[in-house]
Amino acid sequence: MIPLSRKSPVPPAQCNLAKAVDLIGDRWTLLILRSALYGVRRFDDFQSELGTPRTILSGRLKNLVEQGLLARRTYKSEGRRARPEYVLTDKGEALRPVLIALTQWGDHWLDCDGQPPISFTDMQSRQAVHTAFVTDDGREVPSENLRIVLRR
Amino acid sequence: MIPLSRKSPVPPAQCNLAKAVDLIGDRWTLLILRSALYGVRRFDDFQSELGTPRTILSGRLKNLVEQGLLARRTYKSEGRRARPEYVLTDKGEALRPVLIALTQWGDHWLDCDGQPPISFTDMQSRQAVHTAFVTDDGREVPSENLRIVLRR
Repeated sequence: MIPLSRKSPVPPAQCNLAKAVDLIGDRWTLLILRSALYGVRRFDDFQSELGTPRTILSGRLKNLVEQGLLARRTYKSEGRRARPEYVLTDKGEALRPVLIALTQWGDHWLDCDGQPPISFTDMQSRQAVHTAFVTDDGREVPSENLRIVLRR
Repeated sequence: MIPLSRKSPVPPAQCNLAKAVDLIGDRWTLLILRSALYGVRRFDDFQSELGTPRTILSGRLKNLVEQGLLARRTYKSEGRRARPEYVLTDKGEALRPVLIALTQWGDHWLDCDGQPPISFTDMQSRQAVHTAFVTDDGREVPSENLRIVLRR
């Protein structure tokens, strides 16, 4: 069990977790990012997949563009008018490990009906993949061996 | 860039990400879990650290207990009445990689003022630690080599 503490080593306001949560910590935003990570780009595709009310979807997409997680471009199919599409930026794509870690947590702790609907493998070795802590030279570190370092 | 797709391989309703987001995808809940991962357990300590209005805090803690992420126990300091404390269960502690991955994303993408306020090292080797995808035999896999496997 984690030892009792009266407060965190860094106040939440200074922690980037709080800022990150303000940005993406709402259901629709996370589900939009999930679809985007699978390649969904078009308003109607997000809408039909997620069932998000159109005004909410439009607000969330606008916000994600303003925050630099999605880039708005236009595409034009033959004989149709130009329409916007929303493509993940590097900043947005960098959330992939977060969303996969959260999905795997859900697979393990929320779904008792057997196999998770999705799993991830390494393209090369075809081995199953999970999220973990690793040192910069690629060695896995068990969660209980993590040590917090504060910068001053 | 991720190839265009009209929809995700698994509908969001079947994905455990959506269920996980419903459980923990709100600002206060995530900040409470963050404090709990640092060892904060007592109502007043959560309250003074987070500044959460008391009725909201009390509702969020109750919900986290009902969902099995926190366990409610009582403690008693000498000469005072017994009071509740909230301790992370295994299910709650298992969110640590998610919160660290999100913090590290924030450190990298949201804070341009230099060093992040916290970093993590391996207790044994003292090397810096980051979240990554690894195979079950502990080899790191770059994000672009991940392959999704659907179960049917």
